[in-house]
Amino acid sequence: MLIPQSLAYALLAGLPPQTGIYASIVPIVLYAIFGTSRTLAVGPVAVVSLMTAAAIGKIAEAGTADYVAAALVLAFLSGLILLALGLFRLGFLANFLSHPVISGFITASGILIAVSQLKNVLGIDAPGHNLVEIGQSLFTNGGQANMATVLIGVSSIVFLFWARKGLMPALTRTGLSPRTASTMAKAGPVAAVVVATFATWSLDLVESGVRVVGDVPQGLPPLTIPSFSLDLWGSLLGSALLISIIGFVESVSVAQTLAAKKRQRIDPDQELVGLGTANIGAAFTGGFPVTGGFARSVVNFDAGAETPAAGAYTAAGLAIAAMVLTPLIYYLPQATLAATIIVAVLSLVDFSMLRKTWNYSKADFFAVTTTILVTLVFGVEFGVSAGVLLSILIHLYKSSRPHTAEVGQVPGTEHYRNVLRHEVTTSAEVLSIRVDESLYFANARFLEDHIYGLVAGRPKLQHVILMCSAINAIDMSALESLEAINDRLRSLGVSLHLSEVKGPVMDRLKRTDFLDRLTGQVFLTQHQAVRALQD
Amino acid sequence: MLIPQSLAYALLAGLPPQTGIYASIVPIVLYAIFGTSRTLAVGPVAVVSLMTAAAIGKIAEAGTADYVAAALVLAFLSGLILLALGLFRLGFLANFLSHPVISGFITASGILIAVSQLKNVLGIDAPGHNLVEIGQSLFTNGGQANMATVLIGVSSIVFLFWARKGLMPALTRTGLSPRTASTMAKAGPVAAVVVATFATWSLDLVESGVRVVGDVPQGLPPLTIPSFSLDLWGSLLGSALLISIIGFVESVSVAQTLAAKKRQRIDPDQELVGLGTANIGAAFTGGFPVTGGFARSVVNFDAGAETPAAGAYTAAGLAIAAMVLTPLIYYLPQATLAATIIVAVLSLVDFSMLRKTWNYSKADFFAVTTTILVTLVFGVEFGVSAGVLLSILIHLYKSSRPHTAEVGQVPGTEHYRNVLRHEVTTSAEVLSIRVDESLYFANARFLEDHIYGLVAGRPKLQHVILMCSAINAIDMSALESLEAINDRLRSLGVSLHLSEVKGPVMDRLKRTDFLDRLTGQVFLTQHQAVRALQD
Repeated sequence: MLIPQSLAYALLAGLPPQTGIYASIVPIVLYAIFGTSRTLAVGPVAVVSLMTAAAIGKIAEAGTADYVAAALVLAFLSGLILLALGLFRLGFLANFLSHPVISGFITASGILIAVSQLKNVLGIDAPGHNLVEIGQSLFTNGGQANMATVLIGVSSIVFLFWARKGLMPALTRTGLSPRTASTMAKAGPVAAVVVATFATWSLDLVESGVRVVGDVPQGLPPLTIPSFSLDLWGSLLGSALLISIIGFVESVSVAQTLAAKKRQRIDPDQELVGLGTANIGAAFTGGFPVTGGFARSVVNFDAGAETPAAGAYTAAGLAIAAMVLTPLIYYLPQATLAATIIVAVLSLVDFSMLRKTWNYSKADFFAVTTTILVTLVFGVEFGVSAGVLLSILIHLYKSSRPHTAEVGQVPGTEHYRNVLRHEVTTSAEVLSIRVDESLYFANARFLEDHIYGLVAGRPKLQHVILMCSAINAIDMSALESLEAINDRLRSLGVSLHLSEVKGPVMDRLKRTDFLDRLTGQVFLTQHQAVRALQD
Repeated sequence: MLIPQSLAYALLAGLPPQTGIYASIVPIVLYAIFGTSRTLAVGPVAVVSLMTAAAIGKIAEAGTADYVAAALVLAFLSGLILLALGLFRLGFLANFLSHPVISGFITASGILIAVSQLKNVLGIDAPGHNLVEIGQSLFTNGGQANMATVLIGVSSIVFLFWARKGLMPALTRTGLSPRTASTMAKAGPVAAVVVATFATWSLDLVESGVRVVGDVPQGLPPLTIPSFSLDLWGSLLGSALLISIIGFVESVSVAQTLAAKKRQRIDPDQELVGLGTANIGAAFTGGFPVTGGFARSVVNFDAGAETPAAGAYTAAGLAIAAMVLTPLIYYLPQATLAATIIVAVLSLVDFSMLRKTWNYSKADFFAVTTTILVTLVFGVEFGVSAGVLLSILIHLYKSSRPHTAEVGQVPGTEHYRNVLRHEVTTSAEVLSIRVDESLYFANARFLEDHIYGLVAGRPKLQHVILMCSAINAIDMSALESLEAINDRLRSLGVSLHLSEVKGPVMDRLKRTDFLDRLTGQVFLTQHQAVRALQD
């Protein structure tokens, strides 16, 4: 079952079919040695293959030797980046992709992949790396569609969709045990490939213009040396970085999902090392960028893979297939491969995140919508970059305008709450302000302006208490702002006090002369502060 | 006094001397109309002039018409960027430059400017945009130093340094009133210029190889139209952005310092509009990028400028000077102008931030050191970019690994504090965790791992309480992590509770089904939670 999948993703990446098989052999073994998940299977996967096509399509024509060579370099660079991130324990960087952005990116990629494969179902050429380009070429060349190809392609798609849902109940009705029926249902794609290949051969459909996989060299993966041209490295580095990050995030989330089911744990930094060596292995054995894939890992998982040796068996099986079975797939129609891709990736498409984020947070909704639109209109690389930048900008923007509240005493208690949300008592001489964010360079000036604004309209004011219960850190810029606030308030005859300062923040303030220069005091609790100042 | 300064900064930017005067006339008037500070004076300033030289030096030879044209485009683009930021009220973006980074950048720029002017003091050529390049050319060409030039340059520097500190006391000793002495002392640079010019003329030092300002066209600023070549715009856009940001930050901090002394307020967004129109004005009147400068604003301030009309008077004075005085400065030696620059910028150099940040925060220290080193070694544009990126990365890194604490009850009170810092009581069935940071995509996975790690070693555990007093926001990614934690704990037979959730956070959670799916409860206070669960 991995063979048609590997061929299909090579086709998606615009590479010769055998590279898909090559990319599945050595990387599996290397990951089994260096990775931490017992069930994860690495190899070509849909989104990374699409990103590979987008990256090397910019610098070489598909089908040329340069194109294949660029794929090796891309795998090698991705491998080096992943390995370096792992060795320097920088796995946390992957956390900067927010869940909604990843989800939006995967959905948009799924649509792009499905649409990009329509050309193979129609039997026409339709190049392009985004919806606009592909749509235009489909529209222009659509009239040349090959009827025999369309027939094979559409019937493959229909059969595969039905196989997902309807095959198992149908088999059970024929009297098979549920277990046997389940196993046979999963072989649906293999059946489609076998039937389509047999039909194409027996009906001589190549004569009718059906494109087939054709000659695939028999034999083990070749030893290849990626180019060390600095020009090529320079032009692929950005793409390699994006592929590494997306591949890592996808792989880790698959590995974590599977590990959680068995109460195992995986180590993200060691995963980086595993994926890095796997990609370097792909670069030296005629492959292209690989990562842990959900579909191929589930096969392992269902087979009850408990040790890394499972990977070695898979690799051995694929190696034998590469040596023996390749002549049999000469007549496999590209339309059927495209159909397996389309059916597989449409399961990635999931718009529920749009509704969820719309209800929960408009900022997250904006990030996921932008990611989807940019990916569809400008391609995968712009899409994922836009998503990451937008997430970070939104976070910075939010924390640069922190929620602040003037607080007052809830009568009869020692609690102090927002004057706008609760019935509280305040005084004209004492102003208590709570800031619900750590103070750092991006919000330091905001705080200054905010406090000056609050102080301006109160002629009787004598004390300002800054309630620090939600301030988890104060950086150098914010410390300077506090000093400025202290000086300004002193010149107005108002003293500045702090209350409920956290341990780590207090430790740091004690290393400066700020506490000596503070016109007021530091109180353990807000209540003590108010009691002391109002008497 | 503004005339030698304007000439000097034109020299620093590599432009003809008159552009410095042109850049000081119309921009002052436009800023007076659109800006908010009553005392700020815009015109060429040291750091922005250096950045101008770095930006246009990449695309044209100094001294050519292309170079002058590029300066106009740079001013025009900076103006457009500032205006757009102002109209869209994006002044807050300037907050993303942390104080230590700005301070480090200004210090490093001051050093770079001083070193870059040594060539004029020595009377040699020494091009370069960073310490390495300038150092190499100074070393190579140092042997050709012109003795008469060195004499003028060094004596100018010595006199100007002495004028800063020693001139006023000396004048007072001669019997002048302190007020008159202070005014005369401030005219020190003018005296240096006059004496040096007279000496060069009377001793015919041009024959001895002393470079002078030379012919400066007499007349008002010309009307110039910046080029609209898209190629040129593309290559200058990045530099224009950096110049806008640095110019804005510098100008706003000068304006705020002066406004604070008079209890006035300035509006950063309106400031952007004022600076934007000033730069567009400079682009159309033969100038180059301008911003609010400290030295020229202090002149206004000391003169008691109370209305924007002060700017108009200054502009009129400079216009008259441009028409009448330019023949008088033919013999002004470039070495003396370089000396005024060197003495002015060395006052910008301030390494005290290194010591302050070292004591207070190693992360800030790292940011400021890197900014200084990158600026010196790679030039101003790399320096400021590195500083901004590093500040943001450090902030993201810190907030991606939030401070968390297991908390317990301080005996006899209703307070719950960190078990590692205080003597508190805990129980084997209930685990209370306080997270001192808002939950968002960058720390969501950290929280998951952290809680799973804490839960792992406690077989008797029945309840986990997440104390949310310092959680100011929960984004979509973090909500999904909380759902995952809830599901995982349920499968372990442990229920998850929340306590002390803030109003805005609770409002948002209520819009989801998270609270229905939560295995435990939401408690108003941590104490209520522990009391309810331990009984």
